Amino acid sequence: MCHTCQVSINEISRPVCILGLGLIGGSLLRALIDEGVIAYGFNRSPSAARAAAKEGYDVSDNLIETLTRAEADNALIVLATPMPAIDSLLETINEHAPSCGFTDVVSVKGEVYDLVRARNMQARYVGGHPMAGTANSGWEASNPELFRRAVWVVTFDHAADKEDELEEDWISLWVDVVHMATKVGAEVIPARIQQHDAAVARVSHLPHIFAETLAIIGDNGGALALSLAAGSFRDATRVAGSAPSLVRAMCETNSVALLDALDEALSLLNDARANLIQTHPSLEELVDNGYRSRIRFEARSGLNVEQSVSPTPVSNRPVFRLHPGADGWVRQLIQAESLGARIEVLWENGKG
Amino acid sequence: MCHTCQVSINEISRPVCILGLGLIGGSLLRALIDEGVIAYGFNRSPSAARAAAKEGYDVSDNLIETLTRAEADNALIVLATPMPAIDSLLETINEHAPSCGFTDVVSVKGEVYDLVRARNMQARYVGGHPMAGTANSGWEASNPELFRRAVWVVTFDHAADKEDELEEDWISLWVDVVHMATKVGAEVIPARIQQHDAAVARVSHLPHIFAETLAIIGDNGGALALSLAAGSFRDATRVAGSAPSLVRAMCETNSVALLDALDEALSLLNDARANLIQTHPSLEELVDNGYRSRIRFEARSGLNVEQSVSPTPVSNRPVFRLHPGADGWVRQLIQAESLGARIEVLWENGKG
Repeated sequence: MCHTCQVSINEISRPVCILGLGLIGGSLLRALIDEGVIAYGFNRSPSAARAAAKEGYDVSDNLIETLTRAEADNALIVLATPMPAIDSLLETINEHAPSCGFTDVVSVKGEVYDLVRARNMQARYVGGHPMAGTANSGWEASNPELFRRAVWVVTFDHAADKEDELEEDWISLWVDVVHMATKVGAEVIPARIQQHDAAVARVSHLPHIFAETLAIIGDNGGALALSLAAGSFRDATRVAGSAPSLVRAMCETNSVALLDALDEALSLLNDARANLIQTHPSLEELVDNGYRSRIRFEARSGLNVEQSVSPTPVSNRPVFRLHPGADGWVRQLIQAESLGARIEVLWENGKG
Repeated sequence: MCHTCQVSINEISRPVCILGLGLIGGSLLRALIDEGVIAYGFNRSPSAARAAAKEGYDVSDNLIETLTRAEADNALIVLATPMPAIDSLLETINEHAPSCGFTDVVSVKGEVYDLVRARNMQARYVGGHPMAGTANSGWEASNPELFRRAVWVVTFDHAADKEDELEEDWISLWVDVVHMATKVGAEVIPARIQQHDAAVARVSHLPHIFAETLAIIGDNGGALALSLAAGSFRDATRVAGSAPSLVRAMCETNSVALLDALDEALSLLNDARANLIQTHPSLEELVDNGYRSRIRFEARSGLNVEQSVSPTPVSNRPVFRLHPGADGWVRQLIQAESLGARIEVLWENGKG
């Protein structure tokens, strides 16, 4: 309870039911339990479910029993599986937990929303994308600190689409998703699906494509090139060491936005090529613009870790405080989206 | 003196005269003095020369006096200036230190060798490229530990060009350059100029071009994209924060080799584009190849720092030991070059 404004902050109004206990789902379960939230989960693999249960977590390998329980206590369902499992999970949720609101953690939001819309489940859905991960996966890699200071994007397309006739239940669901992310230490950034997918194509998926390409170009240079490769090559190709299936899943399901970013990049590279092939090669335009862009990013992110005296990176993101459901709140969300601002929600308990 | 083979190792047979005392030249002077080598230097800026002299280093701001001294004691001259100063320095060396052998530290070797050949100075020249650096520059940034475990490429084109009539003086010069680099803690990798320039185009210059491009693409996404940018973007664009003049100097003076690498990259990216635009986008080829290439690089470099238990990176490069001037030694150098091997030189004192 905030004593100034008499609203409760960060309290989730219902239990959380997590489907899939890999790196993300497992870390979320651990973090929520650490924060005193009622949370339980399902994992398809009986051995992974047993491993979690042995640690004292409330975990089952029976999906229908888990969803029946979620329906009974009106839980917030979190789909914490990769994209290929989403379609059949939606089907099963529709059948066995038809009143529950749900969110997901898939890193591309457009394809998930297509499936949600195909079943007309928009009024029960709020999309999520926790931007956290490690090189490892599975329950054994899960860690309650995984989301600390990470970005957690929360979508609001349903509110933007039908602002005037928005259901109170949806607002309450949206607030709970925001509270859940904030509770586990993440910074919530609101974004609509198309804007989210376009942004991650630029700052995550294209960097993966470039890293794969550079790794191949270095390798094609043979032993001498690899022997001379130092810091710039190591950093530039780091994410090419990610599991190919994960990289492909991200990039291939976001192909439309990724193509836009890739075409922009090809245009810059072709210009650079034309400038390099001159008698007096000049990369002035590319290099000056690239330098200025990087400096803006450093200023923005506050993540110039090498030069920072702080032991932990500090977020420089602006903060928006907003009252969900209040007049103009969707306009505020769109403004926060365009600024990449994080939000804090002021919400009276039981209002929903 | 090595007691097994009765040869001295790593002893430089002459004083070292360093022209230019910025990050590289200054660090070299400090490191050589720490190792007990007779070394002195010149810096164009009187204030920087005074700063070094105040620390007890033997430094002058008079180029002609410095070169006259180098000629008198047959010093090894190190051109430690950026590329634009090389041409006039060669002219001055020709006039005031006409007997001295010399090396340089410029990161692209082809253009330097063109100038050396234009003056027919090949028999007095051995090219060098210490692959070390920091974000900072100038004498005040210099550090005697800069070259510790770094790669120092030493060229041998003159030996490859005229193997049968190679001058003893050139061999002795080449050995001294190798000894100097080894002395300050670097790993010496032999490479001919074209092979060196092609390799660094792949593993250093193209990564810079890609970093500049990605920085711009992220920036074009506006505040939301920059706000969502995390580790992959930060690492992929890190070197776009380098001083534009340095990036341009490297890339523009190596335009021929860089164009080859860039065209290879454009071909991979255009293939990826064609695969992404399909009804069922697939990046299988790019991602699988990129992953395998990165894994080979990690195995090769032994620089998987994140997973290493060693506090310092360990080089996995093969080692070649060779006797300069002995039968077949140039063939051994070419073999070492193709393997990206580092070399150790077995050399009898005073043989040259």
